[in-house]
Amino acid sequence: MNNNRFDIAIIGCGPAGVSAAITAKIRNKTVLLIGDEISSKVEKAQEIKNYPGLPDIRGDALAGAFISHLEKMEIEITKKRVSTVYAMGDYFAIQADEEMLEAKSVILATGIVTGKSIPGEDELLGRGVSYCATCDASLYRGKSVIVVGYSKKEEEEAAFLSEVCSDVTYIPIYKDETDLPDTVRVVREQVKEIRSEGDKRIVVTSESEYTTDGVFVLRDAIAPDRLVPGLETDGGHIVVDRHMQTNLDGVFACGDITGTPYQYIKAAGEGNVAALSAVNYLS
Amino acid sequence: MNNNRFDIAIIGCGPAGVSAAITAKIRNKTVLLIGDEISSKVEKAQEIKNYPGLPDIRGDALAGAFISHLEKMEIEITKKRVSTVYAMGDYFAIQADEEMLEAKSVILATGIVTGKSIPGEDELLGRGVSYCATCDASLYRGKSVIVVGYSKKEEEEAAFLSEVCSDVTYIPIYKDETDLPDTVRVVREQVKEIRSEGDKRIVVTSESEYTTDGVFVLRDAIAPDRLVPGLETDGGHIVVDRHMQTNLDGVFACGDITGTPYQYIKAAGEGNVAALSAVNYLS
Repeated sequence: MNNNRFDIAIIGCGPAGVSAAITAKIRNKTVLLIGDEISSKVEKAQEIKNYPGLPDIRGDALAGAFISHLEKMEIEITKKRVSTVYAMGDYFAIQADEEMLEAKSVILATGIVTGKSIPGEDELLGRGVSYCATCDASLYRGKSVIVVGYSKKEEEEAAFLSEVCSDVTYIPIYKDETDLPDTVRVVREQVKEIRSEGDKRIVVTSESEYTTDGVFVLRDAIAPDRLVPGLETDGGHIVVDRHMQTNLDGVFACGDITGTPYQYIKAAGEGNVAALSAVNYLS
Repeated sequence: MNNNRFDIAIIGCGPAGVSAAITAKIRNKTVLLIGDEISSKVEKAQEIKNYPGLPDIRGDALAGAFISHLEKMEIEITKKRVSTVYAMGDYFAIQADEEMLEAKSVILATGIVTGKSIPGEDELLGRGVSYCATCDASLYRGKSVIVVGYSKKEEEEAAFLSEVCSDVTYIPIYKDETDLPDTVRVVREQVKEIRSEGDKRIVVTSESEYTTDGVFVLRDAIAPDRLVPGLETDGGHIVVDRHMQTNLDGVFACGDITGTPYQYIKAAGEGNVAALSAVNYLS
């Protein structure tokens, strides 16, 4: 057995993931809390009126309170992006950027995916369409790629790809100015479809068609059933019971990803339940 | 229609009830929050480590934070004890002490009942066994009663009964000294059974048998299916779905009463969901 195998991997750092991590740590479990940072949705909230005990708290103050709580409990956030969780029988392998991490149980707290997939994206995933620049850049060494970026922070990935690939086109799905190396061509057009023609992939936009070797679709969150193959979902939400158990043994979920209402205190409550269910599963 | 009919009655003032009240008020509903005070279980907690955002908070400090939050939102606690909730078709009638209050929907957040019922109690409820001194004292005017009190605050009820009844025996199910009028006889024995013989009720204790006209069994919480006739329960917990909906239309539940884990943050999260489900039901 791998000595670095965590008891519980928690994917996502919003109120659900933070709550799950705190309770799991109290129960003396080794915790891998993995995500970008405290959910930017929390930080950007103007004022939260219904988190009992913290009246009228600003989003950035609540995020700050979560960070202090994690620090007090000596829980670190591993700032990586998870592309896939593989069930290996008695443990889970978690593809996090270029690393493969291991855990005995998994709690999904990734929040909701905003926006639908691009027509053709689901079909071509793993066949010319990728979600992870760090993982798959080497497949496109010296070749051309198109990056569809859903938020400004994806620009870093595009810049990294431009060091490896011969030709990088970046299509931002947001309005902010881009800040990219000159070697990256920026195209501001609506993406309509991705399709396959022989070895090549075609990205169809509102104005044109672009032929390329590979397409990177980079979003904050990945649809849960693509993140964990075999996971039962319903309209984009993970199906869970009252114990936050999914249809897969050892996999739990909490927060917005399990369904409405999308509320901080609901997410925090579910994180607690998911953690205790994972503790139960481990014993 | 009664002008005093509330949109949502919330029974219980622990983290679940407080959270439900805050969210219901934000959604512009009229709220009846009814209970003894902030749950004494919260106040007595030594230190709570896993309420995200409030690390290492003492129970009394968390209770204080809840009270400030309620005050800030101008939500009052109605300090009455609910004995029964009657479904009246398009509204609910709530027997609260001697008053009958009305609401269009009900959220049960009464916490768990500690301790089982006394053998015979369930069968004789309403036939010589009562849960509410204020409601039923007049039935025993000039007669003898036995009061089984599960906490010190029930002594007030016994004192009140001694003003109405000819003879009051008080059996405390706790260790504190009693502080009762001389007219109340205190018996410190284990209660084994309550049974019926003609017009009389017999309380069987570890040492003796006492014959009386009426028996008051006074606890903090009443088993949920006795509180709301027809409610589906499972092992003392109310059965709810992920929306905190019970088997009865317009009746929701949240917190410890819906099952384990018994955790503050879980209860607060469920209160939020129950409130939003009630809002949905009302619309």
